[in-house]
Amino acid sequence: MGLIVQKYGGTSVGDLNRIRNVAKRIIKTYDQGNDVVVVLSAMAGVTDNLIKMAQEISDLPIEREMDVLLATGEQTTVALMAMMLQSMGYKAQSLLGYQAEILTDNAATKARIQNIGAARIKDLIAQKHIVVVAGFQGSDHQGNITTLGRGGSDTTAVAVAAAIKADSCEIYTDVDGIYTTDPRICEKARKLSRISYDEMLEMASLGAKVLQIRSVSFAKKFNVPIHVRSSFNEEEGTMVLDENTGMERLEVSGITCDKNEARITLKRVPDQPGISSKIFCPIADAGIVVDMIIQNTRTGGDTDLTFTVTKSDFKAAVEIAERVGKEIGATEVLTAEDIAKISVIGVGMKNHSGVAAKMFSTLAQENINIRLISTSEIRISCVIEKKYAELAVRALHTAFGLDKKE
Amino acid sequence: MGLIVQKYGGTSVGDLNRIRNVAKRIIKTYDQGNDVVVVLSAMAGVTDNLIKMAQEISDLPIEREMDVLLATGEQTTVALMAMMLQSMGYKAQSLLGYQAEILTDNAATKARIQNIGAARIKDLIAQKHIVVVAGFQGSDHQGNITTLGRGGSDTTAVAVAAAIKADSCEIYTDVDGIYTTDPRICEKARKLSRISYDEMLEMASLGAKVLQIRSVSFAKKFNVPIHVRSSFNEEEGTMVLDENTGMERLEVSGITCDKNEARITLKRVPDQPGISSKIFCPIADAGIVVDMIIQNTRTGGDTDLTFTVTKSDFKAAVEIAERVGKEIGATEVLTAEDIAKISVIGVGMKNHSGVAAKMFSTLAQENINIRLISTSEIRISCVIEKKYAELAVRALHTAFGLDKKE
Repeated sequence: MGLIVQKYGGTSVGDLNRIRNVAKRIIKTYDQGNDVVVVLSAMAGVTDNLIKMAQEISDLPIEREMDVLLATGEQTTVALMAMMLQSMGYKAQSLLGYQAEILTDNAATKARIQNIGAARIKDLIAQKHIVVVAGFQGSDHQGNITTLGRGGSDTTAVAVAAAIKADSCEIYTDVDGIYTTDPRICEKARKLSRISYDEMLEMASLGAKVLQIRSVSFAKKFNVPIHVRSSFNEEEGTMVLDENTGMERLEVSGITCDKNEARITLKRVPDQPGISSKIFCPIADAGIVVDMIIQNTRTGGDTDLTFTVTKSDFKAAVEIAERVGKEIGATEVLTAEDIAKISVIGVGMKNHSGVAAKMFSTLAQENINIRLISTSEIRISCVIEKKYAELAVRALHTAFGLDKKE
Repeated sequence: MGLIVQKYGGTSVGDLNRIRNVAKRIIKTYDQGNDVVVVLSAMAGVTDNLIKMAQEISDLPIEREMDVLLATGEQTTVALMAMMLQSMGYKAQSLLGYQAEILTDNAATKARIQNIGAARIKDLIAQKHIVVVAGFQGSDHQGNITTLGRGGSDTTAVAVAAAIKADSCEIYTDVDGIYTTDPRICEKARKLSRISYDEMLEMASLGAKVLQIRSVSFAKKFNVPIHVRSSFNEEEGTMVLDENTGMERLEVSGITCDKNEARITLKRVPDQPGISSKIFCPIADAGIVVDMIIQNTRTGGDTDLTFTVTKSDFKAAVEIAERVGKEIGATEVLTAEDIAKISVIGVGMKNHSGVAAKMFSTLAQENINIRLISTSEIRISCVIEKKYAELAVRALHTAFGLDKKE
């Protein structure tokens, strides 16, 4: 018996049959004596179609109206789900973003939740309704519809769970949970039963696309336990929790592989104060996010400056690097697109020494050359040649004891 | 220079090309120095598709959720139209029902507008925005989405025009205006340049489906002049006005033909007080609306009681008539489905005598037998055999001088 928030993604509610199956699942939870609040995404494909339609009108459709348009997707699913639950004999009511009092800032298409006035949700729960909340959407202070960006329904679910002090927040998706690494790369990948918010944040930002990053930050901030699980089976998934919640202390919880970056090196840049800002200010002005930055000081007063950007920003970044490189007297601009960033992640790292050493020696044993290294408190990332990416992931997975038991 | 409300129906905004054409039309009005508020329906077919989807879930989907679902149709068109206007270089903003403060009662799927707080519309107009309001939808006092019933966008347009004291309310549709009769029946039918609210109300309720009845009542109540015209050409359409606005005084302005009724006769009912209520109370309880009722008293203390209902209610009405007929001692229940109700309508009738006489003699000249007659202050209706319907319309059209000049 508890108060449970369940979020179902677009694939899970992709057609009327799937909506029916999800309704059964919701009812099962409700019949076990729980109060249930459901958060839904748009039916799979619907949001993309709406975006396409808008882009036929304009390359850059005004964002306020984009949000009005996109919000219809979730509006449709919550209405259909409430009807479905009612047709099965249960009291249910849909709430749109503004009706659920999901108050955001006014940054259209990427709004941030500021507050949830959960009064109406609580009222409906008290009347034993199953409450069906439209994910992804909110309302700014002027009553304009806003949306929360890709994957925003996860954030809605966590925020609603925080606001109503739910006992748990279940995120149903088309995968079983969070894995130690991508099972398509490493067949020994193991489903984690638990992972900390911080580890999940590192995993999410490095390309494990199960949860929207912002939803994890939100969960961490309000200490909402998230249960990531599949809507197509009944198995337990992965709990995303505060790291102090009696978690097993692995050195490393997961390994990620990101092939979406490219590397740019300015050779023999004068080693003078202010040089870095001459390069990185125009890059920032162009809206390009730089990931790793490494500076190798050489004997003789100059230095090689290397950085990585996502592939989509690569061309623009190279142009800037070449222009600025000339101005500041770099001898050459080198680029590499065939790179992969391999990261090991684990809160256990904080207390175990030697994780970096183990990572480097494992890669060395496989004759894999490390081009760049960066670290955070709970992560070590190495950039290597792309062709070694899968080999590196498998070797590290074994070395850090993550392989599943046969 | 004025303040103009323009309403475009589903066919006029049926795809992106048509939305583009409508946008050009709006801009033309705006560029002439007018302030423009646009009211839109859902794209043609969308509402029907949504209803179909809901009916796959349940024969009787809960109406509150039906409204949430249907409201997405207009939400989509207003967002697309605002984008389109902006892409053409004009300031535009969409407003949904609740954002335009269209306050209704809580009768889901058939709500009535109680008030429009036009503050936000006026603000946007003051900032020289083209305001694009979602038709058909409103919000009840609890913030639930409501819809106004079929054709409700007409009512939205008229209500908005009343609230902001617009100079005119243009209803764009796929016909040129209001005709003296159905041009498919009578090729001499003539487009009226003006018609009074009361005549329009009679025409609308008798099956001329150009304007929703409720929008006409609203226009009459708040004295909003409506201009009904085609969105596919530039011609003047028909003005719907107060009858005192210098209108030419025809005896008869229009002739309608309604084939959607059926007739039921109870033969030789005892002519006693209370007999009528014994029949019509159970019929009303079954939710059946009776149109005409005629009682012919016979010599000998009994009477034939005849009434008409719409064809969709016919079966249910016959069952009740047969059951009650037995109880009260009627000798027989006769039915006829092959009937047509021909009506002549005109405010001029109030001042011209002899309209009824002219109608009856015209039908007699064509050897058409009249089965039932009913009248209102500005209308005379005759029920005849269906096969004579077109002949009757043409004959009356000529007799009352409505034929267009060659």
